[in-house]
Amino acid sequence: MAGAVGGGRGCVTLHGAQIRDLLDAKHNVLFDCDGVIWNGETAVSGAPEVVTLLKQRGKRVFFVTNNCTRPRENYVQKFSRLGFTDVAEEEIFSSAYCSAAYLRDVARLQGKVYVIGCGGVMKELRDAGVPVVEEEDAEPGASIYNCPLDPDVKAVLVGYDENFTFMKLAKACCYLRNSECLFLATDPDPWHPLRGGRITPGSGSLTAALETASSRKATVIGKPSRFMFECIASQFDLDPARSLMIGDRLETDILFGSNCGLATVLTLTGVSTLEEALAYRDSQEPQQKDCTPDYVVDSVADFLQALEE
Amino acid sequence: MAGAVGGGRGCVTLHGAQIRDLLDAKHNVLFDCDGVIWNGETAVSGAPEVVTLLKQRGKRVFFVTNNCTRPRENYVQKFSRLGFTDVAEEEIFSSAYCSAAYLRDVARLQGKVYVIGCGGVMKELRDAGVPVVEEEDAEPGASIYNCPLDPDVKAVLVGYDENFTFMKLAKACCYLRNSECLFLATDPDPWHPLRGGRITPGSGSLTAALETASSRKATVIGKPSRFMFECIASQFDLDPARSLMIGDRLETDILFGSNCGLATVLTLTGVSTLEEALAYRDSQEPQQKDCTPDYVVDSVADFLQALEE
Repeated sequence: MAGAVGGGRGCVTLHGAQIRDLLDAKHNVLFDCDGVIWNGETAVSGAPEVVTLLKQRGKRVFFVTNNCTRPRENYVQKFSRLGFTDVAEEEIFSSAYCSAAYLRDVARLQGKVYVIGCGGVMKELRDAGVPVVEEEDAEPGASIYNCPLDPDVKAVLVGYDENFTFMKLAKACCYLRNSECLFLATDPDPWHPLRGGRITPGSGSLTAALETASSRKATVIGKPSRFMFECIASQFDLDPARSLMIGDRLETDILFGSNCGLATVLTLTGVSTLEEALAYRDSQEPQQKDCTPDYVVDSVADFLQALEE
Repeated sequence: MAGAVGGGRGCVTLHGAQIRDLLDAKHNVLFDCDGVIWNGETAVSGAPEVVTLLKQRGKRVFFVTNNCTRPRENYVQKFSRLGFTDVAEEEIFSSAYCSAAYLRDVARLQGKVYVIGCGGVMKELRDAGVPVVEEEDAEPGASIYNCPLDPDVKAVLVGYDENFTFMKLAKACCYLRNSECLFLATDPDPWHPLRGGRITPGSGSLTAALETASSRKATVIGKPSRFMFECIASQFDLDPARSLMIGDRLETDILFGSNCGLATVLTLTGVSTLEEALAYRDSQEPQQKDCTPDYVVDSVADFLQALEE
């Protein structure tokens, strides 16, 4: 049992009593959302009950998502809609919220942000009091050769944006010619699964375009970067040794846990597979090892029995 | 003099007699266009005369450009407009033309191409008889979740596209889920200079977005890949040892020359600088060494005196 609870990155598949022991040892549970507690608009079976029972057992629960499309208040609505009845806005840390916090509290930005991103990012920036460039409607005849550039822009932030265009890319590129202009990305996710076997490009894809065009590298706010954990810890005084990260994506969620000194659980209801986890475990590369989860469960529903006893 | 003519990648600045000796040793001269013989709509001073005199001296002249925005017939018009009076369509090898040649002659594509690119690419594909997906106007309500995908698509080709959108990226991404679908890029250029200090993202930027989203690597047709030289050689029986490549970009033009076994000349009327060339020369990395030009001139006009004698 000690092996299961205290062991290093062993990809140990957890059962019954092992889950109970693990939960006894931890006080804070961090969940990724997509692929872990829900898939699109469908809750993972048992996930709402797991969250409720964790809280009833005195655990602190947080939701840490690279998804930047919704402001936190919309997340509260989604939680409620999918049967999670006791999730508060303060427990939700999205890459949009954390990007706004970074610009306000860490970078202490003096100027405007040019945003490639959707409503969720814009709303969080405005709520944080960070000035953004208000995109004018495309003027007839405006082109990359003559479009106006705002001289107050001191940061470019890239997130998921279904309205991404060449013009936005070109403008961002011009702003980044100024080496004092910050270059941030909400998250590194390369793509996201859609229904019916389709996928959609993620923030990481749009960021790659801008990195190539600007010959610069973005500072990435979302997982696996440590910043989102620092953001939570600054508000809730978390001890990494007593915290557990549960996620479905090895290269973001699990690596994030490793980077922050958290125990990690891979759940198999999302993107990554057990085979991929075992390949990381057996790799000789230290960086690949860090993508190996400590533990594996089929679903967060596996926690139910341990919590109901 | 032997050093200047036959020496290896020495960044030798060429003068008078050295230029004459170099030209005596070569039969074929390959020019990049942007930044070498013209900048935008302005010919580099003396460049039209150099081309004419090379031909009068019995040299074969080719134009090898990563620019994919124009079909070859438009290039002929541009040459004429800028004072190059004796350039024929067969001497112009653009990445758009060579991409179409690759799909027809090398890949022998059985199916359609989904194109991210501009009119130049579409025209060359049609001229080569390669079927392309005709992009319908955006239907109201069409989204990445429900837009139609053409089952006959067997290749995705990415080039410079000022009408690039998230939807195009997402569609290309879905096509590339089929591992038998080819993934080509016209060229790797990350950005291009515009007037007034602005830059515009290049094909390489858009390709990076799609590579990240699809977890695949594109086959790049343009310089520095060898394919464009093979394309010329298949039509004109070139001896690399008797061929000279003149370009302004170390990472594309000069590396292309090195990759194909050509002598290389950097001209300083475009993107790269002498300092960058010397840094490559002094690097310990073999791949960086290959970006070192054999010779350097301020401008192709430096060839004039040697040719006029």
